[in-house]
Amino acid sequence: MTHAEKTVSHKKPSIEIIKNGPYIVKNVDNLINSQGVPIPAQPVMALCRCGGSNNKPFCDSTHNAINFEDDKT
Amino acid sequence: MTHAEKTVSHKKPSIEIIKNGPYIVKNVDNLINSQGVPIPAQPVMALCRCGGSNNKPFCDSTHNAINFEDDKT
Repeated sequence: MTHAEKTVSHKKPSIEIIKNGPYIVKNVDNLINSQGVPIPAQPVMALCRCGGSNNKPFCDSTHNAINFEDDKT
Repeated sequence: MTHAEKTVSHKKPSIEIIKNGPYIVKNVDNLINSQGVPIPAQPVMALCRCGGSNNKPFCDSTHNAINFEDDKT
C-alpha cells in the first residue's frame, strides 16, 4: 500500500453544487494549488465554479456579478 | 452525533488545482448536483473550474478553448 492509498479515518467528504454558484466542499483537508503547495483548508469551503472569482480558488460571489448560468447540473 | 458527522474510513480525499485548468478531485464519493441529487462519482474526477464546460460539472477542456487564465492559485 502506497502512501497515497493509505486509508484514513475521516468525516464524510462531499461536494455539493450550488445552482449558478460555487462548489460547496465539506471535509476535504487536502487542497493543493497549481504549484503543488497545500492551501489551508476549512471544514466547509466554497470553491469558485464560474471562473471569475478574484479570490481563487475560493468563491467571492462574482458568479452573481457576471450572471453565471449553469444550464447543466 | 448526527448522520452528517459520522466518521467513516476512507481513502484520503483531496482537491488539486491545475494551472489554468480544472479541479482534480480524488476520493470524494459524494457529489451532489444543484437539485440535491447524487451524481455518480469516480475515484478521480476533473471538475470544471473555468465555468465554460459543456459537460458540467465535469471538465471537457473548454478552459483551453477559452484561454482560461487563473492568475491566482
